[in-house]
Amino acid sequence: MKLKRLGWALVPALLLSVGSAHAQEAVTPDITFVFNTLLFLIMGMVVMFMACGFAMLEAGSVRSKNAASICLKNITLYAIASIMVWLIGYNVIYGVSEGGWIGTLAPWSADDTEALATGYAASSDWFFQMVFVATAASIVSGTLAERIRLWPFFLFTALLTGLIYPIQASWEWGGGWLDARYGFSDFAGSTLVHATGGWAALAGAIALGPRKGKYTTDGKIVTFHGSSMPLATLGVFILWLGWFGFNGGSQLALGSVDDAISVSNIFVNTNTAAAAGVITVVVLCTLLKGKIDLPMVLNGAIGGLVAITAEPLMPQIWQAALIGAVGGGLIFLATPLLEAARIDDVVGAIPAHLVCGIWGTIVVPFTNPEATFVGQGVGIVANAVFVFAISFVAWMLLKYTIGIRAAEADEDAGLDSSELGQPGYPEFTLNHPAPGLAE
Amino acid sequence: MKLKRLGWALVPALLLSVGSAHAQEAVTPDITFVFNTLLFLIMGMVVMFMACGFAMLEAGSVRSKNAASICLKNITLYAIASIMVWLIGYNVIYGVSEGGWIGTLAPWSADDTEALATGYAASSDWFFQMVFVATAASIVSGTLAERIRLWPFFLFTALLTGLIYPIQASWEWGGGWLDARYGFSDFAGSTLVHATGGWAALAGAIALGPRKGKYTTDGKIVTFHGSSMPLATLGVFILWLGWFGFNGGSQLALGSVDDAISVSNIFVNTNTAAAAGVITVVVLCTLLKGKIDLPMVLNGAIGGLVAITAEPLMPQIWQAALIGAVGGGLIFLATPLLEAARIDDVVGAIPAHLVCGIWGTIVVPFTNPEATFVGQGVGIVANAVFVFAISFVAWMLLKYTIGIRAAEADEDAGLDSSELGQPGYPEFTLNHPAPGLAE
Amino acid sequence: MKLKRLGWALVPALLLSVGSAHAQEAVTPDITFVFNTLLFLIMGMVVMFMACGFAMLEAGSVRSKNAASICLKNITLYAIASIMVWLIGYNVIYGVSEGGWIGTLAPWSADDTEALATGYAASSDWFFQMVFVATAASIVSGTLAERIRLWPFFLFTALLTGLIYPIQASWEWGGGWLDARYGFSDFAGSTLVHATGGWAALAGAIALGPRKGKYTTDGKIVTFHGSSMPLATLGVFILWLGWFGFNGGSQLALGSVDDAISVSNIFVNTNTAAAAGVITVVVLCTLLKGKIDLPMVLNGAIGGLVAITAEPLMPQIWQAALIGAVGGGLIFLATPLLEAARIDDVVGAIPAHLVCGIWGTIVVPFTNPEATFVGQGVGIVANAVFVFAISFVAWMLLKYTIGIRAAEADEDAGLDSSELGQPGYPEFTLNHPAPGLAE
Repeated sequence: MKLKRLGWALVPALLLSVGSAHAQEAVTPDITFVFNTLLFLIMGMVVMFMACGFAMLEAGSVRSKNAASICLKNITLYAIASIMVWLIGYNVIYGVSEGGWIGTLAPWSADDTEALATGYAASSDWFFQMVFVATAASIVSGTLAERIRLWPFFLFTALLTGLIYPIQASWEWGGGWLDARYGFSDFAGSTLVHATGGWAALAGAIALGPRKGKYTTDGKIVTFHGSSMPLATLGVFILWLGWFGFNGGSQLALGSVDDAISVSNIFVNTNTAAAAGVITVVVLCTLLKGKIDLPMVLNGAIGGLVAITAEPLMPQIWQAALIGAVGGGLIFLATPLLEAARIDDVVGAIPAHLVCGIWGTIVVPFTNPEATFVGQGVGIVANAVFVFAISFVAWMLLKYTIGIRAAEADEDAGLDSSELGQPGYPEFTLNHPAPGLAE
Repeated sequence: MKLKRLGWALVPALLLSVGSAHAQEAVTPDITFVFNTLLFLIMGMVVMFMACGFAMLEAGSVRSKNAASICLKNITLYAIASIMVWLIGYNVIYGVSEGGWIGTLAPWSADDTEALATGYAASSDWFFQMVFVATAASIVSGTLAERIRLWPFFLFTALLTGLIYPIQASWEWGGGWLDARYGFSDFAGSTLVHATGGWAALAGAIALGPRKGKYTTDGKIVTFHGSSMPLATLGVFILWLGWFGFNGGSQLALGSVDDAISVSNIFVNTNTAAAAGVITVVVLCTLLKGKIDLPMVLNGAIGGLVAITAEPLMPQIWQAALIGAVGGGLIFLATPLLEAARIDDVVGAIPAHLVCGIWGTIVVPFTNPEATFVGQGVGIVANAVFVFAISFVAWMLLKYTIGIRAAEADEDAGLDSSELGQPGYPEFTLNHPAPGLAE
Repeated sequence: MKLKRLGWALVPALLLSVGSAHAQEAVTPDITFVFNTLLFLIMGMVVMFMACGFAMLEAGSVRSKNAASICLKNITLYAIASIMVWLIGYNVIYGVSEGGWIGTLAPWSADDTEALATGYAASSDWFFQMVFVATAASIVSGTLAERIRLWPFFLFTALLTGLIYPIQASWEWGGGWLDARYGFSDFAGSTLVHATGGWAALAGAIALGPRKGKYTTDGKIVTFHGSSMPLATLGVFILWLGWFGFNGGSQLALGSVDDAISVSNIFVNTNTAAAAGVITVVVLCTLLKGKIDLPMVLNGAIGGLVAITAEPLMPQIWQAALIGAVGGGLIFLATPLLEAARIDDVVGAIPAHLVCGIWGTIVVPFTNPEATFVGQGVGIVANAVFVFAISFVAWMLLKYTIGIRAAEADEDAGLDSSELGQPGYPEFTLNHPAPGLAE
């Protein structure tokens, strides 16, 4: 089933459900409307909660001297996404003409005049789409933690959630050129959400440079341990939970037997891919490293989840396991490669969201006969070029105007001290000031 | 749409949905019943989880020597609310006669003999109402943390959840005098839930006095840093999530196209108000303080949420943003005023729940033509006088009988030590005993 | 209402709902299908999140030197359960012939060819059943924390989730001998899930022995304080939330007025039992110990929840309170007894899940006239003998082949160091190395 995330896209699904092979009696449009709307609201709630998952994962992955700062970034980026998607983003995505390149620059407001024909409440759809945009922004904050200043990050977040994400999403989910001409297929956003966040993060990491002391002049790579593994684990469990909403809700409809079956199959594939990602990293660590690296195992779950996101519906369960397992393997491979390239990604967001996002997108044609490798390739490249280029330009503009990086002394003392004036854990690290500690 | 939270209030909504302008075919009463019940259960679950959000916010906001104690208070207060709303509270609210002042003093039990006419399962409604009562109790625990003893707090909680909250809720949601005579309008409880918690907390804070060392004799105000900003952030994210249930579930119906649209609009307004609250505090802190105060930003989210709670349905999205932004601004203003008044509110619950609760209630007539400023004023004053007076008397009675405040040495050592005999974090603060630390 | 957790078990329920005394117009099979499926998905999501609840409870209950290790165990055991229930477990449970002893050893795949007759999507059912199996595995990890090595635990988890749990579940929920011959009644799994986890944990605890230093040679019992009470509290709140799905979803149907009422009643009874468990422990601690033991209060909530799980539908609310209160009392009694027996159960999982699981199962006939004490007794004993025996043999086999216990030096240093090479909290415990600290 080809998916478009369009306001009018559910009408065929509605007709389909009425004529379904399973149906004995028609579900009325009213009931379908309520089911579809409820799907958006419930699944949107757990996707919204992914903002909390990212916050906890990142708070647990930074050193304690930056823990409050990363919390502030995460709640504020969600707030910024909420406002920007209203003011600009939504209509940039869905105001695009068929085959077009960008929608309209106008604030969104709920319009339910054609509610039954649309098949769901306008606000429920807006909410569901908005939390996807916030997810992309959450990815960026993890990579750039512990050294980026607050306001440049907020400004970039406004650009990402108001324009960068929406423009490239309009190409596909808005029915623009990528969808119309190339039949690109990205069910819930391996590329459109996760690789977007990944490219923006990579551009930022290059513009910003690594954390002080991360790569020594004599070529050594220093491990900075995250300050709380339980918080990082909490974050990944929340993300895993949220992903049922992320992928399951992307069916965009629940008002028929067929849709209910599809959402259920998506749940199983999503869960299986994540589980396979976890187990793959556990096995690879055991065999190749002797000890098991918890942050990498956690990232294995995310890698599996990102990989299945481009097509969580069509794979058989064993195919979902395979897609997720390769995702886990890519985490294991890409993390040290990124370190070797001296790109400092605090939470491993680039391996998880960018590398596994591309993997998930490439592999779609194996299970979805409507997708083609050419179409997938065009989509991946278009997304890469656009998001990376605009992001890099934006980061460099910010760098050479207001500056993006904390002063060296502030980085030593921790951003909590310089930007918040308030420690994340005032009592636990008091006897051992952070700078000299974990480095 | 005027809302009454009554057992029989859905009958008109049911009829309305059948005759809706949108409806092509009637949703049958059976299906409406299941949808309405499902709304109560799902939204009730996330509101229940707000008890966890308050626990985490408060655990992160106290000093580590009181972290276990505040956790104990929060899980126990939820348990007490569960029992008291069953034994007394529910029928005090909904057993009231039209225009009356108090319902009946009798335990609740599920009665589904008129299920279809009622429109939802009796137990689903009870569950949804009960978690609201628990929310009011959670507000109190935050303000009084670090110095109140366990049992007086539990006794007050029993009174609050069994009688104080239910009596004033009966005036409006039970169909009592405030609803019948003044047309007071409080959709999901800016006044009935949040200001109620806020007044009870304020009365307790006055009776109890500030934490030792908070206000010095030479007029200085000492900042006591919360022990874990990530936990406080986690708490606020959970509250934000729960608020979709709090406000969205207060539509009390999902079994029609109109209701599904209303719940969706409520989601968007709720989210937008919170986002505007966050951004307002971030901007105000940046402009006026130089550094950004994370606890205040977190409270900005809550302030925006509380403010929109009195009327989350009628505002346009820009109005919701404005209401939330003013809520954030009030947090910024009221927090130092409260400190100047030497009232010690550990988590800033009074600015968030009381001040923003009043603001949200006052502003309803701007977006809801059925509300009047007189009606709103009467409701706010009646709630204030009743809740504050009864609470203050109760606190004073407790103070001069069993006593409410921990002994000075116990407060120094932390309540974890004196009341639980068990530290919240036995390993992290062992080398640096708490009293001499964060003060 | 007698419950079988069978693929074909809903057909009568479906017919029943059409002929319900409440029904004025029939809910069509399509709509029932969507409601039932939605119930499995939503409730399955919150049960899945219980894996996070267990992880947080256990992370907060271990000493900090084992915090990362227990997180790794918890996320990996959920992944293992996901894979094993697919590869073996599901068809072992539901492939059993009527009255039989074990199902078929074949991987599961979704089959929706008879979707409407079945009444729900195959994948939604699989997902809901799978998260139950994961719950049993989560119970084991808590008991054995701080001393078991990773890989033996993972191998046992694979056995438990692939065969041990599924075989005994097939006897009842698969329609095997226990259901067919004895009319054993266990609505949501006090015995089948919780006692199963408890017996497996007990067998492991005996095979493994207590933590070093827990029981001194001169007969003293040393208290090892958990490292983070807020995390433990977070975990229990998540479990409480998840239990609404655990018990409520076990109604297995939502597509009729009667089912919606049943799920609602289950919510209320579940919540009330937990609340009564909490309050009972608070009161007992106050009266008998002077100080209130937070971990025991938290366990009181779990004890109440486990106790009501065997029959959350039939009790009146006061009966649910009583069942939960006795559950809390059993926590208070059994915890010191277990310590006196020198069985080291880090999180108190055996009192909560085993003792209260048996209590909840025994008491069913008091509220459900279809259950008999003989049937309940046979079920409890069969479950006990089978699970304990197989588990004990498996643990001993692992013990005398690859070994199950960490080396003494590794236990001193903490498993985070020996098995992960990475501390849970690298900054907080640096100045005070863990071994000499909390012991």
